Amino acid sequence: MDYETPQFFRVMQYASRADRDVVDMVSGSPDWEPPAALRDGLAAYAEGEPDTFQYPPSVGLTELREEIAARRSADREQLLVTNGAGEANHLAMAGGLETFPGEEVLLTDPVYPYYAGRANFLDGETGYVSVGPDGRLDPETVRERAGAETAVIVINSPNNPLGVTYGEETIAALIEIAEAVDALLISDEVYDHFDYSGRFTSALSVDSSHRVVTNSFSKSMAITGFRVGYAIFPDGQSELLENARTRHMLSTVTGSRPAQAAVLHALRETDPSYYEDVRTRVQTRIDRFTDALGAAGAEYIEPEGAFYVMARFPEFSGSFENVERLIDEAGVAGMPGEAFGREYAEWIRFALVSPRVETAADRLVGYFDGAARRNQT
Amino acid sequence: MDYETPQFFRVMQYASRADRDVVDMVSGSPDWEPPAALRDGLAAYAEGEPDTFQYPPSVGLTELREEIAARRSADREQLLVTNGAGEANHLAMAGGLETFPGEEVLLTDPVYPYYAGRANFLDGETGYVSVGPDGRLDPETVRERAGAETAVIVINSPNNPLGVTYGEETIAALIEIAEAVDALLISDEVYDHFDYSGRFTSALSVDSSHRVVTNSFSKSMAITGFRVGYAIFPDGQSELLENARTRHMLSTVTGSRPAQAAVLHALRETDPSYYEDVRTRVQTRIDRFTDALGAAGAEYIEPEGAFYVMARFPEFSGSFENVERLIDEAGVAGMPGEAFGREYAEWIRFALVSPRVETAADRLVGYFDGAARRNQT
Repeated sequence: MDYETPQFFRVMQYASRADRDVVDMVSGSPDWEPPAALRDGLAAYAEGEPDTFQYPPSVGLTELREEIAARRSADREQLLVTNGAGEANHLAMAGGLETFPGEEVLLTDPVYPYYAGRANFLDGETGYVSVGPDGRLDPETVRERAGAETAVIVINSPNNPLGVTYGEETIAALIEIAEAVDALLISDEVYDHFDYSGRFTSALSVDSSHRVVTNSFSKSMAITGFRVGYAIFPDGQSELLENARTRHMLSTVTGSRPAQAAVLHALRETDPSYYEDVRTRVQTRIDRFTDALGAAGAEYIEPEGAFYVMARFPEFSGSFENVERLIDEAGVAGMPGEAFGREYAEWIRFALVSPRVETAADRLVGYFDGAARRNQT
Repeated sequence: MDYETPQFFRVMQYASRADRDVVDMVSGSPDWEPPAALRDGLAAYAEGEPDTFQYPPSVGLTELREEIAARRSADREQLLVTNGAGEANHLAMAGGLETFPGEEVLLTDPVYPYYAGRANFLDGETGYVSVGPDGRLDPETVRERAGAETAVIVINSPNNPLGVTYGEETIAALIEIAEAVDALLISDEVYDHFDYSGRFTSALSVDSSHRVVTNSFSKSMAITGFRVGYAIFPDGQSELLENARTRHMLSTVTGSRPAQAAVLHALRETDPSYYEDVRTRVQTRIDRFTDALGAAGAEYIEPEGAFYVMARFPEFSGSFENVERLIDEAGVAGMPGEAFGREYAEWIRFALVSPRVETAADRLVGYFDGAARRNQT
């Protein structure tokens, strides 16, 4: 099977076996509280009648689809509730490869590794577009690279691992390119609640038969283990929607109902201040961590969104070996840049999902300060 | 897309739109209480720390895998927790087609329609073995039909729709056949807690590299909407297991954690009397319903397991039209036999998942009694 295992586990296992205290900044699992209404919704569900414990519709609880559709100004019939954004991306990618001409899945470099794993698993041919040194994908490089062989283009904004947010013009240009080469643009927007730039633009803002938007509540509600996501398919693409519905029904039947019920309650009852508070918390972490990176002599991309910082330390590449060295010698675990592709192989990604971001920052400053002194002597 | 939509929804929709009271005996969703510990486990989970709301391992919560493996005398490493038995069957069938020679999926007629839908969706060639007039699959007919072209054989015991239970000799013979033709036997045992014959034998009882056992808690805990199932893969078939793990990770990432946590608690804390009480309840329904079928002049297969009764009424085939007639004229909704294949196209399946089984029975007796009188005059 030609597929690259995502390497998160390798690093997490190494960190958990380390013979010292390690600040875990590897995975994208939030460490903060979910909305109170999510807990309330789940507890209330646990007391429901037996019929509420049975199969929800395969496409998701009707009220949940309505609630999401209303918030996204979408048509409920175009919306499929999935087992997290993971399944939403899988369904869109598999359907895109089957219903659009071409066999190529065009990705960015660096890339969220699951996209590449899925494309390989589905026997798509993967192609990569470099995002350039500032991390901002230039649509013109996509235009040059995309062609008749391209069936699917996958983007992620706000972006993991780079933390950049694509603005209105970029999104419009990417959809126009997808239309021009008759490919499907999949816009994964799971970090949409984590935009600090004010520039985030959903691909839903452009009406097109060539784009699918995927999302989930994993990050916005801090519930990566609940597995509630969704895909919104374009009007006038009934074959693509039907393909996804069928694949979903025959592979998973339907998503888990307790989780769907809890998310529905949380969507209805959660005040916007919850999301603002979480954003503020992450922004504070970003500020402290990037200050420390500067003090450690590192280069970094200033995050505009999501909750990751990509950093490059002087003469210290983003290899697995170096990441393991940081675990052992500095007590900080990040993800090697080489796990995300070639372009940022010199970099290391740090996930700001630990209350000990400051500790990690101090340790990194101390470590690279010591390294600099050792080099001088 | 070459795939037959399961027809349950068509009948359920027709019944829900009927202009009269209808006893719903269409779907396989239990109407009884889940174990009390399941509710307790879910409520307790709702109060957990934020880290318990994040991704469980892709293969399932470790403690849940251990608990299931211990009960099934299986190796935890061979066990994958899935999004219900539906995903377990999907993973096993897809992996079987990829890793065993041949392109045929051999099914029984009548068949649970999702098996056929999955086989078609996966581009397998479907073949059918008739179970004969008593519903008991004779392994010799499978032996005659299976060959080098057969990659996968799917069985279901206790069986839906027929209610028969396969005994020890049948299971052993079927596994021997799978080995002889180098195919994978998938034994779906979701109704294992609903055996009234005492003859139920799990395919796990035979050690073989050619069988996968699938199961779920949907029926045994009356939680079809929770989506917690599992597949147990054979030792010495690492390619098949790896195939399933990869497909699971790249299509759904992992199953929903609240549901897994609730099932874990229920497995540990539920007294065997819960399962006995449910069984007794269903047996009482079976007795009353089959008595009424006899009084209505119907032929039926005496259920040995599961919670369905297949019945044939005099001069009244199991077509969609006749099922709709029963909804409108008798106020009882069943599933047409023709939805399960050709062999039992004259029959109608009734699911005993309604507290109004007696009402349904009385209505059927009245309807066919009236029909008989109308025919005489």
